[in-house]
Amino acid sequence: MDTAPPRFARRVPEGEDRERLVCGDCGFVAYENPKIIVGSVVEAQDGRVLLCRRAIEPRRGFWTLPAGYLELGETAEEGAAREAREEACAEIAVDSLLGVYSIARIGQVQLIYRARFARPGFAAGPESEAVALFGWGAIPWDDLAFPSVRWALHAWRDAGSDAGSGGAPDRRSDRARAGGL
Amino acid sequence: MDTAPPRFARRVPEGEDRERLVCGDCGFVAYENPKIIVGSVVEAQDGRVLLCRRAIEPRRGFWTLPAGYLELGETAEEGAAREAREEACAEIAVDSLLGVYSIARIGQVQLIYRARFARPGFAAGPESEAVALFGWGAIPWDDLAFPSVRWALHAWRDAGSDAGSGGAPDRRSDRARAGGL
Repeated sequence: MDTAPPRFARRVPEGEDRERLVCGDCGFVAYENPKIIVGSVVEAQDGRVLLCRRAIEPRRGFWTLPAGYLELGETAEEGAAREAREEACAEIAVDSLLGVYSIARIGQVQLIYRARFARPGFAAGPESEAVALFGWGAIPWDDLAFPSVRWALHAWRDAGSDAGSGGAPDRRSDRARAGGL
Repeated sequence: MDTAPPRFARRVPEGEDRERLVCGDCGFVAYENPKIIVGSVVEAQDGRVLLCRRAIEPRRGFWTLPAGYLELGETAEEGAAREAREEACAEIAVDSLLGVYSIARIGQVQLIYRARFARPGFAAGPESEAVALFGWGAIPWDDLAFPSVRWALHAWRDAGSDAGSGGAPDRRSDRARAGGL
């Protein structure tokens, strides 16, 4: 996590209680906060799920879900749909939230959604060597890229066809006005 | 959202597809991604909920939930507990996820949890003018700081005593090893 550029040093800015990256020249405070990963378990009509074999490090050659960093200006669902488009050339419809995974050591919170194909078809994007559909029994468990891929796949199976009901969390997006806490 | 320090300019770094803040001196790319707000609806044994009247801008003097930016090294639940400690001097036990609110315009994803007091007692922290418990009918609806406070309170009421069951998302944390997507 040490990403300090040359002129930045770690010190406690006035009025704060923890070290931040501060530019020695201009005083700019580069706040480093955890980043949000958004992704999806995309289910085809026959019940198989979409996996991508990574063309980039880390874990090149291993299988993962379409997922990546949420960008400014996106809702979490929009980001998950963009990642499926970029990594698997797939247009998806995002349904319920399957999992929230905090990976504190690397500063990530992952939001993984259940999704369906909005139209048929997929193909490897630039960050994928291959993309394919797998039935539950054919999932390459020993060649998954990250533990959270396994967690999300199990959450998807456990949720069954009833995902989104019951105790699922409230989901809202607000693009029209400032509404932060 | 324009936080560019003096020597930074927006341009598209090599191999990327969108503008980033790049330092003209050293080439450092200051990635700006959405930030995660973590907070909680803390319920007392008598069913009332904890609100904090903000001592700071924005929305000074208005009522909010204990919530704030997730910090590096924390899980989402740990961050929610820290915010309750800082803003309301409250020790809480975090239960299920109540809501996921994407506020795209200001680059936030808010994760709001249901929580209980882990021990009795609360008091105003430095960022609060006052903290108090409110029954549903006494909540100062016209004096809430942000729309998402109202959303989360309604999600809390709608979830009833059954929160965390049914279609609630999988929650895991991994502090022991790298496990990112």
